[in-house]
Amino acid sequence: MSKVLGTSTAPGGFRARLADAWARNDSLLCVGLDPDPARFPGAMRGRADRIFDFCRDIVDATAAEACAFKPQIAYFASQRAEDQLEALIAHIHERNPGLPVILDAKRGDIGATAEQYAREAFERYRADALTVNPYMGMDSIEPYLAWRDRGVIVLCRTSNAGGSDLQALSVEGGERLYQRVARLVAGPWNTSGQCALVVGATFPDELADVRRIVGDALPILVPGIGAQGGDIDASVKAGRTTDGTGMAINSSRAILYASAGDDYAEAARRVARETREAINRARRQV
Amino acid sequence: MSKVLGTSTAPGGFRARLADAWARNDSLLCVGLDPDPARFPGAMRGRADRIFDFCRDIVDATAAEACAFKPQIAYFASQRAEDQLEALIAHIHERNPGLPVILDAKRGDIGATAEQYAREAFERYRADALTVNPYMGMDSIEPYLAWRDRGVIVLCRTSNAGGSDLQALSVEGGERLYQRVARLVAGPWNTSGQCALVVGATFPDELADVRRIVGDALPILVPGIGAQGGDIDASVKAGRTTDGTGMAINSSRAILYASAGDDYAEAARRVARETREAINRARRQV
Repeated sequence: MSKVLGTSTAPGGFRARLADAWARNDSLLCVGLDPDPARFPGAMRGRADRIFDFCRDIVDATAAEACAFKPQIAYFASQRAEDQLEALIAHIHERNPGLPVILDAKRGDIGATAEQYAREAFERYRADALTVNPYMGMDSIEPYLAWRDRGVIVLCRTSNAGGSDLQALSVEGGERLYQRVARLVAGPWNTSGQCALVVGATFPDELADVRRIVGDALPILVPGIGAQGGDIDASVKAGRTTDGTGMAINSSRAILYASAGDDYAEAARRVARETREAINRARRQV
Repeated sequence: MSKVLGTSTAPGGFRARLADAWARNDSLLCVGLDPDPARFPGAMRGRADRIFDFCRDIVDATAAEACAFKPQIAYFASQRAEDQLEALIAHIHERNPGLPVILDAKRGDIGATAEQYAREAFERYRADALTVNPYMGMDSIEPYLAWRDRGVIVLCRTSNAGGSDLQALSVEGGERLYQRVARLVAGPWNTSGQCALVVGATFPDELADVRRIVGDALPILVPGIGAQGGDIDASVKAGRTTDGTGMAINSSRAILYASAGDDYAEAARRVARETREAINRARRQV
């Protein structure tokens, strides 16, 4: 079952590569790549054929501030830009060996179909990790785990208002659904240490809950700071591990669209650095 | 918010087009298109560039037996065959005006990203309906509902063994999670009559549960017969509406791979017809 095809860019598992990136760049910042041509600067505006160019400039400007990049596949798929996504991830790997790329696609399907999604994410796009949805259960996660050097990041508590519709329901045993998901993913589903979780920054108390449930073993991908309004200090305090790491804190739009002018790459670098530094101040508070 | 772009192939909403197809073809059979080149017949075997050709032949052979086609996007995405998927759906629309195409992608993400997935499914691929995942709640469903003439088919109870991990949990109020999803989708989430549900054929008692909860208003997409072993008689008895319709019962592999020889299209037609007739016998039993 083990599939190590040499498409990855560095030895070791996803978890190890992420830890290396935390240390090497002194950063817990994940830069999200959600390219919307309508918001591109200057002469690029509205041009879907410039998605690669825009994202490459953002990547090159911010790579030294980041522990990971997270392209969101919907922004590419809606523009027929799958080829640009392939080229972008190849570019990230080539320029930044070992820096993890998380493909945000929130996949969820049964075994035979999940195997196809795994090939798409890990073979075609050469992602280091993929976000997935837990609703269909453990056997919808297993096909991804066959790719031993890749990570599987399971949705647990999401940052949108409607996230509470199901995730906050009390389930048998007295815990809430997102707590049950955290316990399953950290326990029986995490057969080979490849799993991580998604917990939004908009609910710091619940982020702290999840960290208590999973201990220091699982990385947590935290969207929702920046444009979505999550608080950095509260999120870091709630989600950090004992050694002050354990998180990939994502910011997308606040970095990508920091300037609508020709200085967009420099502005992205500045916002990424400020965000990295704000995270670092918070993680080093006693 | 309403988006009617003229990309659909027939007037009326998804629900109306599906009902027309039930009547016109006297069929509740949905033909699933999960093309795996390793299983293609004869000289096509192993050739990802023949995905369109193989699926076109299956479509043309089975369209008169079907109420809908359901391409599964992972089988195209893993093979870099997005262009073939576009061409295939265009072909279905051209040859079979009004026959619904359900894009099986099980999307789930927050608003701004869900809007991109909606553009992908409804504008790029011209699907009549899309399968989506409920884990992220109502606001992750709403962006699709802005496309008034399209359907949104929400995962409720899935046919895989692991489906029970979360879906069968008892939640506050005493019902199970899948029952809560059915109640939400039939009630507050179904603001404009565009919603439907996915309930697997492998749990007929739970399919009957869902039909009781949602009444006759919601169509139910039922995967899991054929290769997955679900029982046609039990499923139809459990899921039909008062007038003996209300379902799109999916079969994929049993039809696609009915023969590995040059007679694959004719074999697919024969299995599709037999399946349609078995469904019809069951739906007309008192």
